[in-house]
Amino acid sequence: MSSTSSVRVANERVIFEVLALGGHRSATELAGVTGLSKPTVGIALAELEELGLVEQVGRRTGSTGRAPRLFRVRAQAGGALAVDVGRQWVRAARVDLTGQVGAACALEADGRSAEAIVEQVLRLAAELAGGPASDASVPSHTVLGSPGVYDAAADVIRLAPNLPGWEEPAVLARLREGLPGALVVENDINLAALAELERLRESGSDAPTFVFVSVGTGLGMGVVDQGRLLRGARGAAGEISYLPAEAAPGSSPTRLEELTGSASVVSAARDAGLAATSAVDVFDAARQGSGAALAVVAREAERVALALTAVVAVLDPPLIILGGGVGRNGDLLLDPIRAVLTARLPLPPPEIRVSRLDVDAPLQGALADGLVRARHHAFEVATAGA
Amino acid sequence: MSSTSSVRVANERVIFEVLALGGHRSATELAGVTGLSKPTVGIALAELEELGLVEQVGRRTGSTGRAPRLFRVRAQAGGALAVDVGRQWVRAARVDLTGQVGAACALEADGRSAEAIVEQVLRLAAELAGGPASDASVPSHTVLGSPGVYDAAADVIRLAPNLPGWEEPAVLARLREGLPGALVVENDINLAALAELERLRESGSDAPTFVFVSVGTGLGMGVVDQGRLLRGARGAAGEISYLPAEAAPGSSPTRLEELTGSASVVSAARDAGLAATSAVDVFDAARQGSGAALAVVAREAERVALALTAVVAVLDPPLIILGGGVGRNGDLLLDPIRAVLTARLPLPPPEIRVSRLDVDAPLQGALADGLVRARHHAFEVATAGA
Repeated sequence: MSSTSSVRVANERVIFEVLALGGHRSATELAGVTGLSKPTVGIALAELEELGLVEQVGRRTGSTGRAPRLFRVRAQAGGALAVDVGRQWVRAARVDLTGQVGAACALEADGRSAEAIVEQVLRLAAELAGGPASDASVPSHTVLGSPGVYDAAADVIRLAPNLPGWEEPAVLARLREGLPGALVVENDINLAALAELERLRESGSDAPTFVFVSVGTGLGMGVVDQGRLLRGARGAAGEISYLPAEAAPGSSPTRLEELTGSASVVSAARDAGLAATSAVDVFDAARQGSGAALAVVAREAERVALALTAVVAVLDPPLIILGGGVGRNGDLLLDPIRAVLTARLPLPPPEIRVSRLDVDAPLQGALADGLVRARHHAFEVATAGA
Repeated sequence: MSSTSSVRVANERVIFEVLALGGHRSATELAGVTGLSKPTVGIALAELEELGLVEQVGRRTGSTGRAPRLFRVRAQAGGALAVDVGRQWVRAARVDLTGQVGAACALEADGRSAEAIVEQVLRLAAELAGGPASDASVPSHTVLGSPGVYDAAADVIRLAPNLPGWEEPAVLARLREGLPGALVVENDINLAALAELERLRESGSDAPTFVFVSVGTGLGMGVVDQGRLLRGARGAAGEISYLPAEAAPGSSPTRLEELTGSASVVSAARDAGLAATSAVDVFDAARQGSGAALAVVAREAERVALALTAVVAVLDPPLIILGGGVGRNGDLLLDPIRAVLTARLPLPPPEIRVSRLDVDAPLQGALADGLVRARHHAFEVATAGA
């Protein structure tokens, strides 16, 4: 690649990335945002249009003089499929290169076997491929959210005990075969953290630092440092379900997850004589003033706070975002959690708040991650000959 | 600043930074390393020489044809003072802009009061200023290593309970008044982690990720992610002495530091009937086969492993470097620590090794940090008019 064409491609990349942020832009606007000269922007736009990466969307009306032509990223230039596999739901959605989510669907997870869930994922992917968005874009990537940790060397998922059979090598082999584009496997809580990152960016925070802690069926965390997800050496950063639990000295170690997950909330409530079938029942009973439910909630807050104490001691994050089916009960949990952190730690607790994202946060994160990858891929492929 | 002079300064910065890596370089070598043309390098070197940032050091001998002139960073162009205050020792050293450590000295810490230690620091600084390095450079910064956390908003050190009086505002006010250049306060274990980072870089690791865990009088950690120190929102990342300790449920929380520090090793040994006055005594007795000492060491390994379990669950680092007066006893500690991590964590433990740095690691880190700051400062001041 000559130095001149390398500069040209760099300029095209800048223009493409600005357009990828969304909206319709004129050459003059793009010159203003990028600092490139208007002729340079014009040349880059012509080339990007020829490569099929951007397209004209008409002219701006209402301006005096000749109305400027407007450009946007071309939807059909690429896209991604996002899949999130949880113990309760299997979700999927598609996004085109403009960031438009074309279709999304969900199935209650078929808990009989990992094979059954794999079939559900492939069925959802087929439905989305056949839908109205099918002519819009071809996914270059499928981002799969999953419990546990992806071991790239062995190409298997590990540490997903809540999904029996899910750690078998055949699972990823079958998914890779049946899903479109390159398969990217990511921990579901990490993806939820990416969704939170997107939201913080949208609200103006450039490179936020925070941890997203999910308390639901399991206990997990995603760590974002200055806008970057910290995965750890083996993808196991944030696996706080393996924090040492407070047990009597000499007793065998307990996973903190077993003491904090929704199942433990339900079983503690039952032990206290409550007719709860889900953690939601227990939190509802507590809201209605049940003393037994309030005691269970207080114990849960104490244990979540124990995990957060370790997180703050190690990372000192400025912000903790709590999510998951249990964690989202901030009205009952946040005050006692703050009290425990205040008692145990020498500095005031960091800001703690409840996620405003829905239960599909991992899917949202998978879409955001897939979109970044699809855009990068589309640009690289289109400009590979330059 | 015109665009042309901005390019010129950028070129000078590149040349200066390459020379700052050490050694003597010719213009031809600098052109090869930087990719700049030889005339550009020549212009930059002339300007850097005029600014007093670099100097000629003669010509290379042994080459055929005209011997090339060699350049290096000018030692007198700047420097830094490094100070490390610990409970046992107060150390100080000076470095000039070439990275040469001109003088270093240490005093046994006067534990009577924080004022006494402040006077010791100022005495050491005065001695170093008067020494043979005095004419070589004027420190633009003093980097002070200290236990605890520096609260920049309040300009005080916090969380340094092992140094009574050290958290008083007067301490930093007096030090800032009496020490040369701008005062930079950094946690001592963070500085030791920076010293480890330097060493890993020297051995060819570009942007290493690791944690440095110090077990000595106290328990602390420095976190380095891809070559960057993670300080946390309030400088309290790595304050693992505040990890929840395993205590019987319902008992009041204990700081893990109280269960792992050298004082707890000594007191456990005494409880077991050993005549130990220091942790060194206990480890020596264990090496000589004392059953009681071996039991104390086993308990210590278990507790350090507890802290490391939390660190691995949160961060999943690829490498743990153990240091400090207790932590450096790897021959006795590493195997049992690995055994506990293997039992408690779902993935094999990361690489764990003992630091090869000496007890003055925080001072080494302060020198490295001071040198980076001094070089940056010297360049900025010299080129400010460009």
